[in-house]
Amino acid sequence: MNITLAHCQSFDNQDPVRELRELFSLPPGVIYLDGNSLGVMPKTAPARVADVVSREWGTDLIQSWNKNGWFQMPQKVGDKIARLIGANAGEVVATDSTSINLFKVLSAALNMAAEDAPRRKRIVSERSNFPTDLYIAEALCKERGYELVLVEPEDIAATLNAEVAVLMLTHVNYRTGAMHDMAAVTSAAHAEGILTVWDLAHSAGAVPVNLTVAKADFAVGCGYKYLNGGPGAPAFVWVNPMHTDRFWQPLAGWWGHATPFAFTPDYQPAPGITRYMCGTQPMISLAALECGLDATLAAEPLGGMNALRKKSLALTDLFIQLIEQRCQGFELGLATPQTHGQRGSQVCLTREVGAYAIVQALIARGVVGDFRAGDPSTGSGGTASPDILRFGFTPLYIGFEDVWHAVEHLRQVLETGEWQRAEFNQKHAVT
Amino acid sequence: MNITLAHCQSFDNQDPVRELRELFSLPPGVIYLDGNSLGVMPKTAPARVADVVSREWGTDLIQSWNKNGWFQMPQKVGDKIARLIGANAGEVVATDSTSINLFKVLSAALNMAAEDAPRRKRIVSERSNFPTDLYIAEALCKERGYELVLVEPEDIAATLNAEVAVLMLTHVNYRTGAMHDMAAVTSAAHAEGILTVWDLAHSAGAVPVNLTVAKADFAVGCGYKYLNGGPGAPAFVWVNPMHTDRFWQPLAGWWGHATPFAFTPDYQPAPGITRYMCGTQPMISLAALECGLDATLAAEPLGGMNALRKKSLALTDLFIQLIEQRCQGFELGLATPQTHGQRGSQVCLTREVGAYAIVQALIARGVVGDFRAGDPSTGSGGTASPDILRFGFTPLYIGFEDVWHAVEHLRQVLETGEWQRAEFNQKHAVT
Repeated sequence: MNITLAHCQSFDNQDPVRELRELFSLPPGVIYLDGNSLGVMPKTAPARVADVVSREWGTDLIQSWNKNGWFQMPQKVGDKIARLIGANAGEVVATDSTSINLFKVLSAALNMAAEDAPRRKRIVSERSNFPTDLYIAEALCKERGYELVLVEPEDIAATLNAEVAVLMLTHVNYRTGAMHDMAAVTSAAHAEGILTVWDLAHSAGAVPVNLTVAKADFAVGCGYKYLNGGPGAPAFVWVNPMHTDRFWQPLAGWWGHATPFAFTPDYQPAPGITRYMCGTQPMISLAALECGLDATLAAEPLGGMNALRKKSLALTDLFIQLIEQRCQGFELGLATPQTHGQRGSQVCLTREVGAYAIVQALIARGVVGDFRAGDPSTGSGGTASPDILRFGFTPLYIGFEDVWHAVEHLRQVLETGEWQRAEFNQKHAVT
Repeated sequence: MNITLAHCQSFDNQDPVRELRELFSLPPGVIYLDGNSLGVMPKTAPARVADVVSREWGTDLIQSWNKNGWFQMPQKVGDKIARLIGANAGEVVATDSTSINLFKVLSAALNMAAEDAPRRKRIVSERSNFPTDLYIAEALCKERGYELVLVEPEDIAATLNAEVAVLMLTHVNYRTGAMHDMAAVTSAAHAEGILTVWDLAHSAGAVPVNLTVAKADFAVGCGYKYLNGGPGAPAFVWVNPMHTDRFWQPLAGWWGHATPFAFTPDYQPAPGITRYMCGTQPMISLAALECGLDATLAAEPLGGMNALRKKSLALTDLFIQLIEQRCQGFELGLATPQTHGQRGSQVCLTREVGAYAIVQALIARGVVGDFRAGDPSTGSGGTASPDILRFGFTPLYIGFEDVWHAVEHLRQVLETGEWQRAEFNQKHAVT
């Protein structure tokens, strides 16, 4: 059966979480399919940020540390993130960047491994993991005499052996949108005595995550993608409570101290996840992040992450179906798994030629996705991976009619060949 | 000669940088002597932050990375900081927290020392250095087999020998306001083959700093104190260009990569200070910091840091004189050096009894300073260091009449004994 615009409109009418869209400021004339890179602004953010700036900073000044709860912000915001990732209150802090938090947890994981299994000298990860994760691991390996082993996703299981200390994975792949089965992979790693570190950058707020049920060891994630926390929002870090108090992490700054305002010259780590804090945190950015989280948590009475997941799968299914139905013959491939259990909240199309220019032509029409270059070295089985057109579907604010129009624009861009115009072929840096 | 209120008013009338005060939003009824903890809000901040939130994030979304210059913000803001610390454009980035930046530069310094002088296994610092600096050093020492040697300031020179790899100091002491002679200390360290790491948290924007002339090796500093960048503003990092390209720093995230958007799996550090970046930075907080810097740089046509320094010394001299003149017999001591060359931009008074309550009573009257507890272990020559009443004098926005009234309030608090009321004696955490 062919899907029509009217079908899409009826899907919107039946969408049980449709009302959440009203919580976000969507730029007029834009279909924003890049929430996996930078989420849109919650409508509460401008007033909240203005209040933090003008009243909390401008008027209350240092009294805000107590009066306006600045001391507790990383924990307060962390507790809200915890509700989205299957963690308990008190187990998450919102702080620093994803890269820095990864350094903390990977250091701690290596400390644990060095004590429990000193002969294990490998970290395993995916070759197409987000590069910053690989860079951080590379630096730690260099410093501590470990080897970073990078494999294709289908080869991970075979690498899990008694040589491996840590398995470090991003739950949903940033390029392809492919999702790991966190519980199964963690269980397989544990069966071999391997600790797991999960990067939730493309899953927190996008798909249901349950770190507790999965018995994961460490996790980090990003505040500015599906959590809609604003550009460069603080990231977050979670550590399984079984491990939290066993080790320091090396970024042992005063905010992770048991009694920071005792100003003692020696470090005593705070109990619990607070020891994963380091320096003073940006209050203005934390306040914006909290607005994004509140908008996401508004889904809780409507079914929460499960309802959002159901919609996300319906949106990505619809996009895939409409591409098949309306963009036949334009040499588009699909990089994202069809199987629901293996798909995040994005769809990545491949094209041998013109992917960058097609994305630019779509942006000129107000359909914002992004481009990721292929890499001749990263394909499976020795084949090159092609260039990617990447489209994120944030179920909080993307509707079914948006999907219809996005595909229609793509069809027109391909059919008219307008992407071949010079203006769309000039490359600039894009995120 | 006794100083009168009229004298103070005439000092204000003759103050060549008086007009800068108009650039800041000073809370009504408050004399804010805590800019050394959290600087006040520049008047431009609310509109600038609102624009970043509503237009750059809300409307332009990911296009802001190019369109609104987000990619360049850490370097752009860093270049403005460079003008205040005797560094050149391209040598500073505004990023992360002071603690994290200290970890980066101390790691790099240890890497250099390990290569150039592998038998040197000590880091020397001051026992009363700001604790987070000591914690970070302690963690790195533990990890790399170094020893952290903590001494009193007068004993530093004697510890500089062939066992020492790095001398790590805060330029202006956070408790006492005592300032090191950066050029002389650096020169003495270099004469012994020792690298220097300077924390400028209490000097950038407060006193003239010239890292280039001092031939310092590494420096970090804070954005939210004298630079008025807002609560938890990004910090900064500088590396002597001689050293920058020699080593990685271990927080090797994608923003420090030579080509972050090539998404290559292996790390290639960017040339220059950009390699001291790690993850994505908070744009809203960076914009607020830039407002603070612009207000400070507005002093340049009026004589810049030298003019601000002249005023700062006049303000702290006046405060010390007025305390001597008007608070005799109240058992106040002076922890801050009288010698100009050894004084930052704050004055710390000591009192055996009641320091905390006196600070609280002053705050209740609208005179905001802060309290730092003494430490029986940190005094010189084995004597205990007493509790401290700490008053910061930011020459950008504090006037001479403010100093008069602050001392008058202190005199009244002491004379009436109102600090002995129970409400002022209940301790809460303060920064």
